[in-house]
Amino acid sequence: MIEYRNVRVALLGAGSVGSQVARLLLEQSDELAGRAGAGLELTGIAVRDLDAERDVDLPRDLFTTDAESLILGADIVVELIGGIEPARSYVLQALGSGADVVTGNKALLASHGPELFAAAEQVGAQVFYEAAVAGAIPIIRPLRESLAGDRIKRIMGIVNGTTNFILDRMDSLGESLEDALAQATALGYAEADPTADIEGYDAAQKATILASLAFHTTVPLMSVHREGITGVTHEQVVAARKAGYVVKLLAICESLVDDDGAPGVSARVHPALVPLGHPLAAVHGAKNAVFVEAEAAGDLMFYGAGAGGVETASAVLGDLVSAARRHVIGGPGLAESNHANLHVLPMGNVVTSYQITLDVADQPGVLATVASLLAQHEVSVETVEQTSGVISSDGGVATATLIIGTHRARESDLAATVAALTNATVVNSVTSVLRVEGA
Amino acid sequence: MIEYRNVRVALLGAGSVGSQVARLLLEQSDELAGRAGAGLELTGIAVRDLDAERDVDLPRDLFTTDAESLILGADIVVELIGGIEPARSYVLQALGSGADVVTGNKALLASHGPELFAAAEQVGAQVFYEAAVAGAIPIIRPLRESLAGDRIKRIMGIVNGTTNFILDRMDSLGESLEDALAQATALGYAEADPTADIEGYDAAQKATILASLAFHTTVPLMSVHREGITGVTHEQVVAARKAGYVVKLLAICESLVDDDGAPGVSARVHPALVPLGHPLAAVHGAKNAVFVEAEAAGDLMFYGAGAGGVETASAVLGDLVSAARRHVIGGPGLAESNHANLHVLPMGNVVTSYQITLDVADQPGVLATVASLLAQHEVSVETVEQTSGVISSDGGVATATLIIGTHRARESDLAATVAALTNATVVNSVTSVLRVEGA
Repeated sequence: MIEYRNVRVALLGAGSVGSQVARLLLEQSDELAGRAGAGLELTGIAVRDLDAERDVDLPRDLFTTDAESLILGADIVVELIGGIEPARSYVLQALGSGADVVTGNKALLASHGPELFAAAEQVGAQVFYEAAVAGAIPIIRPLRESLAGDRIKRIMGIVNGTTNFILDRMDSLGESLEDALAQATALGYAEADPTADIEGYDAAQKATILASLAFHTTVPLMSVHREGITGVTHEQVVAARKAGYVVKLLAICESLVDDDGAPGVSARVHPALVPLGHPLAAVHGAKNAVFVEAEAAGDLMFYGAGAGGVETASAVLGDLVSAARRHVIGGPGLAESNHANLHVLPMGNVVTSYQITLDVADQPGVLATVASLLAQHEVSVETVEQTSGVISSDGGVATATLIIGTHRARESDLAATVAALTNATVVNSVTSVLRVEGA
Repeated sequence: MIEYRNVRVALLGAGSVGSQVARLLLEQSDELAGRAGAGLELTGIAVRDLDAERDVDLPRDLFTTDAESLILGADIVVELIGGIEPARSYVLQALGSGADVVTGNKALLASHGPELFAAAEQVGAQVFYEAAVAGAIPIIRPLRESLAGDRIKRIMGIVNGTTNFILDRMDSLGESLEDALAQATALGYAEADPTADIEGYDAAQKATILASLAFHTTVPLMSVHREGITGVTHEQVVAARKAGYVVKLLAICESLVDDDGAPGVSARVHPALVPLGHPLAAVHGAKNAVFVEAEAAGDLMFYGAGAGGVETASAVLGDLVSAARRHVIGGPGLAESNHANLHVLPMGNVVTSYQITLDVADQPGVLATVASLLAQHEVSVETVEQTSGVISSDGGVATATLIIGTHRARESDLAATVAALTNATVVNSVTSVLRVEGA
């Protein structure tokens, strides 16, 4: 067997993932060398504060605050700092020097992916990012390689563990959003400022990455339609279960046609009704899952831990072994693929079905009025359920609740319909509009 | 962009998978070229009978009966004939000439894998086999690459669609094994001779492949403990559901310790009780799923279609694109990995828990006798359920049913326990012994 020199690995960041990566690199060095075909030598760990407390006890002499010098001597740079700067500058420095980069930084990839991939391509270096989407779950490599001979039609992902934890508690324990969020914070599933999770920003970053990869097209973050879960009510969750659904925050990337029938792609993040029999409905707690509909392969699902230090470290180490093999074997590895370069379509082009809940006046002819309003906007009704009328609390006019399930309709038509319903005199209020996915 | 010459692809076999591979290669040639970095030119399809009926209409001039000549001019040979010969000779010829091989032939890999991998290594060629296990589901590449930096503890796979279809009908529709098998045959899920599926031979081949890959160790097919589903009764399935389980045929590959505490591996196929809350319990019909327990990543599951012509063709094409990229880029690709070379352990070393159903004499002291028998053999009781006694049909002695759930015990101790129970005078018969997995 040919003996290779060690591959030098520089680690940037020693947070919950970084410290586990360092530990596993040190503890399993023989095994990893066997798999990579060369030793993986951890040359140092760049941190901001040498004296900060770490999750794991690591040799002091590995730490440095001088990231630039550490990067200079590395074959592979593992970036686990997170955020845009200084992560972006470090990654560009690493790629500029010809080093491969392994990163779990979804924010950086979602906002500066094309810049990083272009920098890598210039020098024949590689960016590996399995850890950036759905933590430990292998999804990047299956999309990039296993499905490289197939056409992906749609991806539906539960890619944010915090919101899935919250929605699952609202569903299974009947908790309010506030109580479930408080639990998520107490258990460490939610950050002190939970905005990025509950408003869907984190999921939107992942949607950008998945859509770009699946459709060989650069899908900018700003083109992703984003709604968080803060509008999801206890009542919606209860009504959903009664109707055979569970509410999930989904990142949906799909191929669509534009107004002229030309192919395009769309990415969106919003709460959706998922039928209880769908595999995504069985994803509980903080787990993640990515459901892929491919033309030839049919339906696939990838399930597992979407976060966690040691779990995500597994994905980083898998990438590290791949990158190290590349150093042993040579060859440029896998380039990013955006040859399809499809048109990225706005939310209005999306076609799906909807559940609309209306508070209406309980009088003859209301259903006819509502139905004709929907028909005028090309939205076709599949089911209608009307609850028995109730006298309003101030003793006024009797009202009733109408729950309308629609056939598949264009998002733009639906939006116009909802606007018209809101203005209709027989409609007191549009209580809830939820998209139904996976039916 | 650099222009490469086309990569020449020879296809062996035009059955349900082969004909779909040919169709997709011809229909999606531009897309595949974009992803592979070079055109994929289908140079011919070797078949036994030029006039046989095909699932797909393909150009007549592609067909040949001269496989050897076709292989001679190929960069990549796709072997979808199945069985050992002539597939083995063709694959060895292809590797001998330096071509990469893409195969979905689990029988060949399970029985001659080491020979093929050695032949490939000699010339720096590669064997790709994503289609050999769990059809369209990406599992080979995630195990080989994504989890290359992790330690796999256990794999539990539903890797045979026919038996899952049968067991699912027995569970959900209350059908007998015979009726469910007849349905499977009528719907094309089962072969005319279903032995390979229902006796677990097919699943055992896949267990060999998964275990070898997961543990970097050659696990011979003959070391795989194998039990089929023909002994599974309607009564067992009903009792299982009542107790919160579903019966699944599982392929289980796990790391174990031998009698001296040294690390080893084990592979086995048998029906098992899976708790209803486990993700594998929700795998219905002919679907497949592979559940992976890794040290760092935690629990992962890969779910999808385990068979089908076009579905499996997706896996073949993914491998084809990978192989073609290798031709464009150069480099030896990924070698097989058996550096761990662990001891392959017999079934007696397996540790799991059990559900034992006994038909016993309904008289005082029986439970004490049974319990002490178990204790003598180091099998510890977790739960006992006794049904009310019944008078036997010939008006003889009253009998009762005892259902014993055990704590985790060694398979060899369990076997000795069952032998002792069978011989005990108070035990009329051991009605059922099932392993409990995933609890």
